[in-house]
Order: sequence, then structure tokens, then C-alpha cells
Amino acid sequence: MQPAAITMGCPVGIGPEIILRFFAGLTESICPPVVLGDLGVLQRTAALLDSTVKPVAWQPGESVRHGTVPVLELSHLDANRLHWGQPSKETGTAMAEYIRRAAQGALSGEFAAVVTCPIAKKALHEAGIFFPGHTEMLAALTYASRFRMMLAGSRLRVVLVTIHEPLAKVSAMLSVEGILDCIRMTAESLRRDFGLTKPRIAVAGFNPHSGEQGMFGREEMDIIEPALQQYQGEAIVSGPQPPDTVFHKAANGSFDAVVCMYHDQGLIPFKLLHFQDGVNVTLGLPIVRTSVDHGTAYDIAGKGIADAASLRAAWCMAQEIAANRAR
Amino acid sequence: MQPAAITMGCPVGIGPEIILRFFAGLTESICPPVVLGDLGVLQRTAALLDSTVKPVAWQPGESVRHGTVPVLELSHLDANRLHWGQPSKETGTAMAEYIRRAAQGALSGEFAAVVTCPIAKKALHEAGIFFPGHTEMLAALTYASRFRMMLAGSRLRVVLVTIHEPLAKVSAMLSVEGILDCIRMTAESLRRDFGLTKPRIAVAGFNPHSGEQGMFGREEMDIIEPALQQYQGEAIVSGPQPPDTVFHKAANGSFDAVVCMYHDQGLIPFKLLHFQDGVNVTLGLPIVRTSVDHGTAYDIAGKGIADAASLRAAWCMAQEIAANRAR
Repeated sequence: MQPAAITMGCPVGIGPEIILRFFAGLTESICPPVVLGDLGVLQRTAALLDSTVKPVAWQPGESVRHGTVPVLELSHLDANRLHWGQPSKETGTAMAEYIRRAAQGALSGEFAAVVTCPIAKKALHEAGIFFPGHTEMLAALTYASRFRMMLAGSRLRVVLVTIHEPLAKVSAMLSVEGILDCIRMTAESLRRDFGLTKPRIAVAGFNPHSGEQGMFGREEMDIIEPALQQYQGEAIVSGPQPPDTVFHKAANGSFDAVVCMYHDQGLIPFKLLHFQDGVNVTLGLPIVRTSVDHGTAYDIAGKGIADAASLRAAWCMAQEIAANRAR
Repeated sequence: MQPAAITMGCPVGIGPEIILRFFAGLTESICPPVVLGDLGVLQRTAALLDSTVKPVAWQPGESVRHGTVPVLELSHLDANRLHWGQPSKETGTAMAEYIRRAAQGALSGEFAAVVTCPIAKKALHEAGIFFPGHTEMLAALTYASRFRMMLAGSRLRVVLVTIHEPLAKVSAMLSVEGILDCIRMTAESLRRDFGLTKPRIAVAGFNPHSGEQGMFGREEMDIIEPALQQYQGEAIVSGPQPPDTVFHKAANGSFDAVVCMYHDQGLIPFKLLHFQDGVNVTLGLPIVRTSVDHGTAYDIAGKGIADAASLRAAWCMAQEIAANRAR
């Protein structure tokens, strides 16, 4: 299989560090990982960490030597002008280029998947790139108009209907079409990406006890139930499930994924079970894209204490999805 | 110590069944449990379950014999007219009397604590008693004007600022005073009931990532932060904590309790960790009151499959709190 592209993310965040740790622990792989980033930054980080793996320049088509970190050089940042935790116009421009090149290569078939290390929106904006986030940028670069965020781990998968919205405004943003779309994209991903021929999807309610027949809110009756009724497809879909019990059921094997109405409804249980090893999977893109589920962690960048567990999990899942899609 | 009163709850729910299972597994106790309920119903249930413990009539002041279920008889329901899962005016009136007598006995010092089995609001209403719930009724019976619900387990304690409200209305119901009151009652309970001299309390934010400086909502800046600033007391209070990570931190020992803004914010992580053994503790009452954290489960009542784990946990915690308060 083609290599998987790992974008280095923000050059002054924990991306370079977790990439080195990840490669140091790498054994075998069906899609060998390659880094889209900055060789100088990775070499400087390797010296800092006393790394057992050596970053080397790499070009598409070349084979990958074990014990090295193959780097497709897309920037040549001046190491003397970089300070951990302090992004600049230059670092923002560089990290945007890693993402652009990864998307282009994945679309053309050069890369089997894209695994992204964290960026900071602020740094992107400083470089004059005004996407609301990483995922929106990748969607634009791959010409995708609809996309959803799934967070996936060994015990729980959640998909979000709304993401970074004030909680008081979420009710007004819910729609039958939006929920239905989310159910369909979840079903498609579970089948195509995770190889589940008859996926079981739970749709969470919005209010306490799913509103108890309208006593504590009507979103279930007015929006969620109609969406469930309109769904036609191969997945077994059930809901609205009371939010306070559905994650226990899903984590214990009753459902393959939970469609969640708002950010914390999904993120609270997900991070409780998968604080270290959660993976962010983007549904709806024509390419395979997974991401670590943490940020740039500027406060600990360069200190040698960042954990590569989420990157390792994101790369494993990208391989699995790419292999399932290739079947 | 005085005995702990266990109210039988709805006579046609799973209360009688879990009480028998609980007594069958009982070993030693510093406050021996006694049941406030219906001897005939418990005898019928004992026959149904082929119980190893025998319900017997008991009066205050009498000692308790091991291997029996001591019952303070507060109703004499006609067993032939009772049907599992079908509450009536008679069963509603009876269960209300168990609660009234328990509160009276706890106030007078006759009982060290009250542990309640589940009731259904509908059954209470059929008996002409119009409290919104169990806790409101106990608050009125013990002349308490302020109370809060804590859910407590070995890994996590959560306290709710709002409970059974439509989620879209919660934002408008949050107030500096309400949150401050909740922090104070949590701090007092952790000190007095759980013996923590310097409790560490996390206050959760309301919006994703606690709003990110107002980008996704302002409740943190306008309401939660001012409440935190006004708090003066012995507890170490921190927040607003991002909702998606605070429960992981608390479950791993960084906090003794999390003050939550809405029902599912607290209940989702709590039920994920304590689905079977969670305990509901009422803060703010002059008596010790714990409760199972499940309902009457009419759908499985009388089938011999109900689990007594939550009742066992509720009774253990009531003992612990009573002992701490008596110090």
C-alpha cells in the first residue's frame, strides 16, 4: 500500500516531538508513515530528545529505511528564530503547506491516508489563512461540502451533530435534515471504514431522560424522532436514547456508534474512556483522514514530556480504514 | 448507633425485591437497617424469590435478629389487589407514609439515616400528593429550604446546579447565587459527610472548552467566574474547568467533587463509571438521606432479576455519612 502522510502540525507545538516518539516505537506497517514537515525542526527536536531515530530527507517513490524518520521537506524554517509555544507568520504558512500537500497527495493516490498533528487556529490566521479549523481546511482542499467529526476508540465511537457552538444556541441549530445527514454519514463510515456490515447506531436525545414525553423539552419529539423515522438504510438505528445511559450501553457493546447532539454530550464520555488514545476521524471526505484528538499543547512543547499515544492510535486507525476501503 | 431506615418505595416496583436481596447479602453493620414498609408485600416477595431471609414485624426499640428483615409496618395492602408495575391510589398513599415516617424518625433521632427505594411520581400524584419528586417531599418534611442532589461513587462525585430542565432553558436559569450556593453546599458536605478537611472542588464550565474566552458562549465569564471569585471558604475551588476533561481529572483523583451546570453534564460521566453502584445523596437536609440512583423499573418488577448493588451502596454510604456526622 502507499505510504500514509503524517503532517507535522505547528512547528513550535508538540507535533515534532510526538512524531519522533511515534517513530521510535514503530515496528511494522502496511502503509509506512512519512512526515510532511520540516527536516531542520525535526533534527533539532531529535537532538533535544536524544532520539533513537534519525530524521532524513525523503522523496515520493523512495523506499523507507527502518530506524529513520522520512521527511518530505516542505519548509526550511530558521531554527534560530523559532521558540517553542510561539507561532509566527512563518510557522503558520509552513504548517498550512504540509496540510495542502497531504490533501493533494491523498487525492491523487500518492498517499493512502492523512494523519494530522495539531495546529493552532491562531497560527493559521496569522499566516492569513482564515479557515475556522483544520477540518474545514481539509474539506475545502478535497472539495467536500459535507463532513462530520467522529471520535473513535476501542470502546466508544461518537459522531457530533453540532461542534463548537454555544450550548444555549444548539437547540435552534438542530434540524431533521442535519441529524439525518449525520446518521447517514455515520452508517456509511461504519460500513466502509470499519467493516461493519450491519452497524448499530444509537441517536442520543437532547434533554434529561430524552425529555420524558415533552416534560423537559421537545427537541426529541419535534426533531430527533422525525429524523429517525425518515432514515432508510442498512444500519440499525435506535433512539432517541436517554443521554445518561446510552454511553454505558455503547461502551459495553450494544452500539457501534452514538450520534450526539452537542460537543460535550459526546466528548465528556469519550474523553473519560479514551483520554490518551482517542482518535478524531473526519467523515465525508474523499480521502482517509485521522487526527490526534489533542491540541498543540504550547505549554509543554519542547519539554520532552508529550505523549505519542494519540498519534499512534490515529495512525493505526488510518491504516485500518485505508485497508478496509481498499477491499 | 441508631438503626438506618430503608423506605420500601413503590410496593409494585423493584423496591421489595432489592430489599430482600440486600438483606440476604448483609453481614455486619454499625447502624442495623430496618425497613419502613409493608410486611405482607415483603412476605409475598420473599416467597416469590425463594428468599433466604424472613421478613418479620419490628417495632422501634426492639433488637434486630440476623437473618430476618425487620419491618416497621406502615401499611397493610391487600396482596390480591396488587399487580407488579401497576401503582394505584393505595400503593401511592402507602409509599408516601413510609417516607413521612422515615423523615419524622430521622428528625427525632430515632433513625441514624434514611435510605430510600424508588418511587414513581405518577403513583404519588395518584394518591393526591403533588411534590415534583422524592427529594422535594423529604425537604418539605424536614423543613429544609435549600437542597442539592449529589451523585456519589468510589471514583466520582457530581453535584447538580440544575436538574430536570429542558437543556435550552438551562442557560437562563444559571445565576451567580445559585452556583455559589451549590459550591458551598458541596464544600460543607465533603467536610461534614465525607470527612475531607480540605476538599478540592472543580466547577465545570457550561460551553465547549468553557467557551474559549467567549468565542462559544459567555456563561463562564458572566456567571461562573464571578461565582468562583465570590466564594470564600475552606474548600479549594477551581474552574470553570473545560467540561470534556474535568471528569477524567476528577475520576483520577484531582478533585473530590465536580459541580455541574446541567443534568447530563454530571449524569453522563457518572453513569459511565457507576452504572450499577451509584448513590444519590441529598445535600442540605438536616437528616442523612441517600437513595438508590435508579427508578421503580416497573418493566422488570416481580421478575426476580433486579440488582441490589445500588441499594447496598446507598446503605453503606448512609452509614459512613452518619458516622462522620456523629464524630
